[in-house]
Amino acid sequence: MATVPAPRASDIGSDASSTALLTDQYELTMLEAALADGSAHRQCSFEVFARRLPDGRRYGVVAGMGRIVDAVARFSFGEPELAVVARFLDDATVQWLRDFRFSGDIDGYREGELYFPGSPILSVRGTFAECVLLETLVLSILNHDSAIASAAARMVSAADGRRMIEMGSRRAHEESAVACARAAYLAGFDATSNLEAVRRHGVPGAGTSAHAFTLLHTRDGVPDEVAAFRAQVAALGVGTTLLVDTYDITCGVENAVAAAGTGLGGVRIDSGDLGVLARQVRAQLDGLGATGTRIVVSGDLDEYAIAALRAEPVDSYGVGTSLVTGSGAPTAGMVYKLVEVEGVPVEKRSSHKQSRGGTKRAVRLSRASGTVVEEVLYRAGAPVPDAADLEARELLIPMVRGGSVVDDLPTLDDARALLARNLVSLPWEGLKLSHGEPAVPTRFAGSVEPIGTGEGWR
Amino acid sequence: MATVPAPRASDIGSDASSTALLTDQYELTMLEAALADGSAHRQCSFEVFARRLPDGRRYGVVAGMGRIVDAVARFSFGEPELAVVARFLDDATVQWLRDFRFSGDIDGYREGELYFPGSPILSVRGTFAECVLLETLVLSILNHDSAIASAAARMVSAADGRRMIEMGSRRAHEESAVACARAAYLAGFDATSNLEAVRRHGVPGAGTSAHAFTLLHTRDGVPDEVAAFRAQVAALGVGTTLLVDTYDITCGVENAVAAAGTGLGGVRIDSGDLGVLARQVRAQLDGLGATGTRIVVSGDLDEYAIAALRAEPVDSYGVGTSLVTGSGAPTAGMVYKLVEVEGVPVEKRSSHKQSRGGTKRAVRLSRASGTVVEEVLYRAGAPVPDAADLEARELLIPMVRGGSVVDDLPTLDDARALLARNLVSLPWEGLKLSHGEPAVPTRFAGSVEPIGTGEGWR
Repeated sequence: MATVPAPRASDIGSDASSTALLTDQYELTMLEAALADGSAHRQCSFEVFARRLPDGRRYGVVAGMGRIVDAVARFSFGEPELAVVARFLDDATVQWLRDFRFSGDIDGYREGELYFPGSPILSVRGTFAECVLLETLVLSILNHDSAIASAAARMVSAADGRRMIEMGSRRAHEESAVACARAAYLAGFDATSNLEAVRRHGVPGAGTSAHAFTLLHTRDGVPDEVAAFRAQVAALGVGTTLLVDTYDITCGVENAVAAAGTGLGGVRIDSGDLGVLARQVRAQLDGLGATGTRIVVSGDLDEYAIAALRAEPVDSYGVGTSLVTGSGAPTAGMVYKLVEVEGVPVEKRSSHKQSRGGTKRAVRLSRASGTVVEEVLYRAGAPVPDAADLEARELLIPMVRGGSVVDDLPTLDDARALLARNLVSLPWEGLKLSHGEPAVPTRFAGSVEPIGTGEGWR
Repeated sequence: MATVPAPRASDIGSDASSTALLTDQYELTMLEAALADGSAHRQCSFEVFARRLPDGRRYGVVAGMGRIVDAVARFSFGEPELAVVARFLDDATVQWLRDFRFSGDIDGYREGELYFPGSPILSVRGTFAECVLLETLVLSILNHDSAIASAAARMVSAADGRRMIEMGSRRAHEESAVACARAAYLAGFDATSNLEAVRRHGVPGAGTSAHAFTLLHTRDGVPDEVAAFRAQVAALGVGTTLLVDTYDITCGVENAVAAAGTGLGGVRIDSGDLGVLARQVRAQLDGLGATGTRIVVSGDLDEYAIAALRAEPVDSYGVGTSLVTGSGAPTAGMVYKLVEVEGVPVEKRSSHKQSRGGTKRAVRLSRASGTVVEEVLYRAGAPVPDAADLEARELLIPMVRGGSVVDDLPTLDDARALLARNLVSLPWEGLKLSHGEPAVPTRFAGSVEPIGTGEGWR
């Protein structure tokens, strides 16, 4: 399997265009109404959280913060954007937007952090005007990237250390595919097939070949699999991975070793009963002397199928559809809620027994062994909750201050390493693939009832 | 509900950047190997089709062709793209890519056409080199856009003529959201919240307001819903739609009419038992004299929830999550297969009883009443299958010839109108929301066995 070398830092960039229209119209009409009556300038605090995890999931993975910071920096209105909003906004609002740059503060959970129901994963503070404009874009990124990373982390756990290649681009919107590759790498995948993710995010690239390449090597209707394999080996070296299931898989393995020799890097099986075939192919390869040739499997793999292949001689998994669709949970269901106006907590309904308004912070409490016990939310400015003999780790870090991105934010590789550590810190049942409750209870300081179990949190 | 006027044609554009890296690495390594042994220049024919519809769906909706034509036109390698592929490709291949433009032919089903298992919805013909490079990007677009349009069409049917607003941007990747808005409009939605879809695709814009706007109008912790409503009406006019469920919905409706008068455009209900609340709010509005005020409902609506509200006094539906996630089927599962090399059919396995290789065309056969009876695939160049007393309509139209986009391709509005006609032409059971078989059988000319029911088609 060919791997693209990691790019130089100067190569890693992203599309420099404005992100200002990647939003809902009502964010702008609310702005207009609030500018007109002066309320637009009130200091506000918005929070992003998920009311619940996808059905039966035991944890969620925060992803997208790096993309948010970039998207907020590009959230400005040039002439093309102003021409669109001028169709429905008054002149005063259009003029206000002409000079707009976000000038507030953003704190967030690090990428690679786990989240649970109610975790305040993002805090956005500034005037109502500047905070409300970011709502749609912030949610698009967090809901997408976290959904994919959350599914990917379960697949990586199921693979138990074997190599994972993300190859789902063709099953997702072409730009979503790039973000999926990034989220999968964050979650522990080793490489992606997506070249734009290689360029933009520095994810290692990988690839094998398709059935079309073998079929191309047909002369007068007669297949010539050996010719296809020889051509691939000649171009890409014996370390390449040959796709052996276009015709008969036993002949395919024989032809592969004939073309590449016993030093062949790998063979890929993309159809059939992968467990049975992996055993059969392993025995055949070993019998031919290709004992170092790796077996890559692909084809409708999800975390359950990956886990089911644990006992088989599989060296790498190629995962597509289930990764880019979040394995049944394609969006994370996060919301962006106004929680404070001019220092006073607000909330949607007045009938709650327990107030959840107000800017919050969160700590995760762990035993000395490292195992997480619970996550506790507390009002910003209040003392950190007493943790008795537990270690408390603050979960929110500064990301934007006065509109400027904070220096030395965690990188994508930092996020990948953090998630790996976080998964080890879960209580043992947290990594089970079966449906269950959140692995870590989240509660409000002073309350004993976990968030998400009662009526208190909406 | 404010509506953005349709843009002038000159406003409708799209990102002009290269699409060449929105692809899988193996498309390029296969190219390198095929250039080296000369097979890259063989004339090939690739086809896109879905082996099956999503579980229980009765039809699929083709969407994305307009985006494909645009993306293919931008598929070229400038210096930034060449710098990435030069990391893993040999010099000869990089030089070849420097001059690359697709120069082949593309035929496809019109956007808004229905598809069924095996329907050859896209035919790409040219050298292996130029056709293989387009695989990933073409599939990304068709799999995404068709999945969304297919779900959206069911929602539009369920709404039975009531106004539908797409508002799912925050639940999808930010660029996917733009394509979702386009696909939803194609499928019969009336408007979108997404401003970039307004700009790029000319979809009508719409929006109401959020709970945050009402919460913002809080003084010293005391809610002032009337102040929020007055501000919105002052800025957007009495035709606006007020969100009435932030606090108590009965007070909300009272406050809304107090702020706007009986000429209020609409009220939105975003939570609770929407059917019960719609009846209650209708009675209250009528009692207040606001008999023309429309009721908009939103909040976790899918096609089943929409259908369940048919008997209630609901005027408009706002649909988010279920739309952008394809209501359980977020990707269409289409594949891009090599079917012919130098005029000779090829196929993945030699053991099929019945050949499915070769470039295909398709006709849909209808009774004089307009009701579709079946879809018949036939080998390109063969006579159109005998239709007895049925009318036969060719489904593939030329889209690209010699690398140039054909003039006068159907517009997005053409696609919308075509789909509306197509849905009327389905057998009556085709529009049922319940799980079932494809509404129209698809078969190969000369065969009686429908595609997708046996082993003959993979």
